[in-house]
Amino acid sequence: MAYRVGIAGATGLVGQRLVARLSGHPWFELAALGASERSAGRPYREAARWLLSDPLPPEAGERLVVGCAPGDFSGCDVVLSALDATAGRLLEPALARAGLPVVSNSSAMRMDPGVPLLVPEVNAAHVDRLLSRPAAERGFVVTNPNCSVTGLAMALAPLHRAFGVRRVVVATLQAVSGAGLDGPRAIELLDNVIPYIAGEEEKIETELRKILGGADERGFLPAAIDVAAHCHRVNTVDGHLEAISVELDRRPSVEDVVAALEEFTGDVRGLGLPSAPEAPIVVRREVDRPQTRLDRDAGGGMSVVVGRVRPCPVLTVRLVVLSHNTVRGAAGGALLNAELLAARGLLGRGTGA
Amino acid sequence: MAYRVGIAGATGLVGQRLVARLSGHPWFELAALGASERSAGRPYREAARWLLSDPLPPEAGERLVVGCAPGDFSGCDVVLSALDATAGRLLEPALARAGLPVVSNSSAMRMDPGVPLLVPEVNAAHVDRLLSRPAAERGFVVTNPNCSVTGLAMALAPLHRAFGVRRVVVATLQAVSGAGLDGPRAIELLDNVIPYIAGEEEKIETELRKILGGADERGFLPAAIDVAAHCHRVNTVDGHLEAISVELDRRPSVEDVVAALEEFTGDVRGLGLPSAPEAPIVVRREVDRPQTRLDRDAGGGMSVVVGRVRPCPVLTVRLVVLSHNTVRGAAGGALLNAELLAARGLLGRGTGA
Amino acid sequence: MAYRVGIAGATGLVGQRLVARLSGHPWFELAALGASERSAGRPYREAARWLLSDPLPPEAGERLVVGCAPGDFSGCDVVLSALDATAGRLLEPALARAGLPVVSNSSAMRMDPGVPLLVPEVNAAHVDRLLSRPAAERGFVVTNPNCSVTGLAMALAPLHRAFGVRRVVVATLQAVSGAGLDGPRAIELLDNVIPYIAGEEEKIETELRKILGGADERGFLPAAIDVAAHCHRVNTVDGHLEAISVELDRRPSVEDVVAALEEFTGDVRGLGLPSAPEAPIVVRREVDRPQTRLDRDAGGGMSVVVGRVRPCPVLTVRLVVLSHNTVRGAAGGALLNAELLAARGLLGRGTGA
Amino acid sequence: MAYRVGIAGATGLVGQRLVARLSGHPWFELAALGASERSAGRPYREAARWLLSDPLPPEAGERLVVGCAPGDFSGCDVVLSALDATAGRLLEPALARAGLPVVSNSSAMRMDPGVPLLVPEVNAAHVDRLLSRPAAERGFVVTNPNCSVTGLAMALAPLHRAFGVRRVVVATLQAVSGAGLDGPRAIELLDNVIPYIAGEEEKIETELRKILGGADERGFLPAAIDVAAHCHRVNTVDGHLEAISVELDRRPSVEDVVAALEEFTGDVRGLGLPSAPEAPIVVRREVDRPQTRLDRDAGGGMSVVVGRVRPCPVLTVRLVVLSHNTVRGAAGGALLNAELLAARGLLGRGTGA
Repeated sequence: MAYRVGIAGATGLVGQRLVARLSGHPWFELAALGASERSAGRPYREAARWLLSDPLPPEAGERLVVGCAPGDFSGCDVVLSALDATAGRLLEPALARAGLPVVSNSSAMRMDPGVPLLVPEVNAAHVDRLLSRPAAERGFVVTNPNCSVTGLAMALAPLHRAFGVRRVVVATLQAVSGAGLDGPRAIELLDNVIPYIAGEEEKIETELRKILGGADERGFLPAAIDVAAHCHRVNTVDGHLEAISVELDRRPSVEDVVAALEEFTGDVRGLGLPSAPEAPIVVRREVDRPQTRLDRDAGGGMSVVVGRVRPCPVLTVRLVVLSHNTVRGAAGGALLNAELLAARGLLGRGTGA
Repeated sequence: MAYRVGIAGATGLVGQRLVARLSGHPWFELAALGASERSAGRPYREAARWLLSDPLPPEAGERLVVGCAPGDFSGCDVVLSALDATAGRLLEPALARAGLPVVSNSSAMRMDPGVPLLVPEVNAAHVDRLLSRPAAERGFVVTNPNCSVTGLAMALAPLHRAFGVRRVVVATLQAVSGAGLDGPRAIELLDNVIPYIAGEEEKIETELRKILGGADERGFLPAAIDVAAHCHRVNTVDGHLEAISVELDRRPSVEDVVAALEEFTGDVRGLGLPSAPEAPIVVRREVDRPQTRLDRDAGGGMSVVVGRVRPCPVLTVRLVVLSHNTVRGAAGGALLNAELLAARGLLGRGTGA
Repeated sequence: MAYRVGIAGATGLVGQRLVARLSGHPWFELAALGASERSAGRPYREAARWLLSDPLPPEAGERLVVGCAPGDFSGCDVVLSALDATAGRLLEPALARAGLPVVSNSSAMRMDPGVPLLVPEVNAAHVDRLLSRPAAERGFVVTNPNCSVTGLAMALAPLHRAFGVRRVVVATLQAVSGAGLDGPRAIELLDNVIPYIAGEEEKIETELRKILGGADERGFLPAAIDVAAHCHRVNTVDGHLEAISVELDRRPSVEDVVAALEEFTGDVRGLGLPSAPEAPIVVRREVDRPQTRLDRDAGGGMSVVVGRVRPCPVLTVRLVVLSHNTVRGAAGGALLNAELLAARGLLGRGTGA
Repeated sequence: MAYRVGIAGATGLVGQRLVARLSGHPWFELAALGASERSAGRPYREAARWLLSDPLPPEAGERLVVGCAPGDFSGCDVVLSALDATAGRLLEPALARAGLPVVSNSSAMRMDPGVPLLVPEVNAAHVDRLLSRPAAERGFVVTNPNCSVTGLAMALAPLHRAFGVRRVVVATLQAVSGAGLDGPRAIELLDNVIPYIAGEEEKIETELRKILGGADERGFLPAAIDVAAHCHRVNTVDGHLEAISVELDRRPSVEDVVAALEEFTGDVRGLGLPSAPEAPIVVRREVDRPQTRLDRDAGGGMSVVVGRVRPCPVLTVRLVVLSHNTVRGAAGGALLNAELLAARGLLGRGTGA
């Protein structure tokens, strides 16, 4: 019997990806599509301007959109949130207080001291904190990081475990889908690079530390890593590419770094999570890979692709990292989080909804 | 009376820019268009596939293309070289030995111990070495740096003078015109980023040191600066944008850094060089500038535009630099070098050619 | 003494182009910058998000923005309108009733039976109607066509005069600047073509007839030409390219068609209008020209470039036409109209403004 | 038991698509990868620069590339040819004479009087001619049309059957993948449209007639349809979009035209061809569809998407057609042809390969 899943913020770009990925999902079934009041009451097909090349699943297209209040998700076992930060800050705590597990892609609660910020392969153990919460608290929130952080965290995790990451300088070349349906106009971005994304550099610098840090009964303990980010919006549809210089505690050879990356299996191996890719990290050895369009779909968009591992004349090692921002970095990442919760017994099944 | 100028490698993209810029130049007149044997003997209009939106100057269009041997430039007072590295290595020393001053955009001779690598505002004094050469040596070679180095050198020069540059991490987002007429195919670059440009990272790391270093009678003394470069080809026509983290000897405030950049007038002020921009460096204070398309033409493409000056959590300061790669970084830069030579009395005028 | 010019709708993309082109104009000087209430009272530099690579003229940047009511343009000799259609319908008649000549780029009044729709080289005589209006009516409105119509009208005018145009099938490939600052998002247009532009096909089909038609004391007499338009938005910054099949009354040779195009000097030759290009139509003979980026700036963006003239297996002749949509098709076209009015004595000079 | 398939021209872009589509094909198995002498003897993984985002099937990657002579395909039951026109003209007849059925995507033999030019849904009956060939001739050639013709032929076929097509004006907006690995450079196409593709307009005008025409024992009888094509290369990766004006013998309503398109099931329904899409034609009713990126993958890239059906003021009806050029228009179309041959009993199975 499948878990019944509601989506809050279902009409946006990430919401659309969630709808597409839930179609045919082995563990989950779509139970509610929540959006703003403007959309509520209309068939999803009309309320959402579908912008994916994957077809809109017909059963979702016919479903009537509801709101995003707790009552709209009665009967749901879990709510996936693709709300924007402002709406998320308002609605996600309310959903959790009403007893609903909330798996959020929004930035609203990521840095909240009680909320796990998850990249399952990297810090699945951070959900342990939820196991010890008071029995009365059925609801909770877990989050996935900003789309530009996921690939970075995944690529640095094995290096941090093996060699100790101290400092990171990262330049991102981010796709327009990362800005959602209200992103830059074509006239702003054509034949252009915009070297600024509001709030993005700060998110990279703080979220990475929380993900690579520890967690105990008192809370999350950020890793002591200094991060300097330079964010750019470029003319690609999907896929965030990042050029990274890392300072490590030790000075491993390039071969040792590649080996650490390739041997990384992640902390959810064996759980059979449907969205977990065969290989969390794919290492390319060609001199000019990863490339955004050619590599973003590796592992169905859920693998992180790393290449150009080479010494850094300033810090220790340089590399290029690519991850699919609306799959691994958003909808797929959120879904993987929900699967982790299910596998860890943190989702109940509604009884008669 | 104008100096008579030959162009070696006149049919390529940089050669075309040189032809366009020489039209109406107050000090120089076009005297010879040299290219490969395949082109020699044909009118330039047919030999070159003109790809600039500026019109092909009619008098250049009708001129018959010659070869690139010394004899082809007899009667010239100076040769501007837009040859590729292989041809440059072969032909430029031959032209110099034949008594011709050669102002080269090619990478062939840049790191040669006897050849100045010039960004006039930054190291005009490096031409002093040519003054002391034996009287018999009428010819010589001067070069301008790789198109991704010019903006970097210009932006770092005032910081180096004021605060001492120690280490630099730079990520470039480079336009396709930088690859010339044989650059990437549309199918390779559309909706894509290529995180690799052959030889480019090495050039940045070595050329910067030579430019910011000193020069005395024994030769050029590279600055002791460690540089780590990450190069990317992105979908822009013109304009190389660079995200830079710099470690300085001192820790100036952001305001001090901005002041040093804005007060930089460069070492050729007062010489009246026709291609020298009013302001070598333009500082933008908006949060999202410079942008490639909007700012590349600042100062007629000869100014370097700097923005987003802010502290760096890993090194000392972060900034974004933009310069026009085929103007300031190639044709305009070479022409400015030729103008510097003229102003310094290093170009003779032919006597009857 | 220069005519004093106000701009209504000065903050949009066409308004910005007008501001740029007025800087240094020999006949006109900027006297007022009108925009919406939200902008009024702020310096233009802040009110407009300047998106041109030409620099914002400093004196315009400091000027305080006013509204768009008649009182806001007191002291102006003419108002250039870059308003959108809705605002134009409201404000342009009011400005004219207040005695102001209005030269509008908006679609609001184009098809009004009393309003000339001008492409000066093609139908300058249409302004004659204004000469016979009652003396009391000092104000009036003249318009330039939709940006996709100007090039089409210019290219067809000599063919209509020489051979009689009967039917036209035209497919447009239009640049994003044509949609202004609220045009398609990058996510909508990247790696994409949108085969629809709201209202555009109807405008082409009706405006062309009015421009190529006659005018007498009773009004404008549309030409009897059937037009079928197919409009597309493509990924170019500036420049509307159009593929045209034309049916003519006669069957001229390709050479005759080319000759008619090349010999077309237009109806304003000799008036010395500053914005009139040397050649209204430039014919390219290469098999693959005009191309959008390479040819849109011909004649400073004011020439229309025609190429690929060849027989049509279905109608009579096929050709490709390119014109710069925000220069010739908008700001430059409006300014040329204003210059025509000045040359024809239809602009008075304010006496004490 | 699967048919053993060789690919001639396996390293190019269409060859790569064929390799990808053969992986897991229910009727066919890959038996030989033929390419030029430069590639022969090397593993396919090295010989081909793989540019698809679908991964290179590992078993194909390890296979050694052979040449394209008959002996290289001994043991094959059929050869799929992705050769260029020049190589195809040389090699395809030789392969056929050696007894091999050749299913070609190249233009070499398309207009040959003895060679069927197939879009199976439209003219599957054209293969009947092969049934009556002399018993001694085991080999033969069938072809699929140019990538810009397939969608056009598919969309016009039901209109031709129902209402009689007389004249067609078509403007194409073609993706860069249509030009293969040697297509335009990024510098040539960025922020640009190229209104010319060598030979393309002629192919559209002749191939369409052959496809929509009849076939009897004497040969193929082209349909009497006049076609005027205007071809453009635009900045899209995949998907050819076409704006079409059609003159019909009758004047059906828009609803009748839509009905004819939607009711078209094609001539291979019931044969169970694995590559045949559920719906050969998908009609979109939104005002702005089809769009290249959003619709090219309809039916796995094998459906043709039609929209904007509306009256034409010059001919009879206007519509927009989109088809995936490297799937339906090349590799998928060729494979569908091979499947048709198999279903019609025209492929033997090798006995001792």
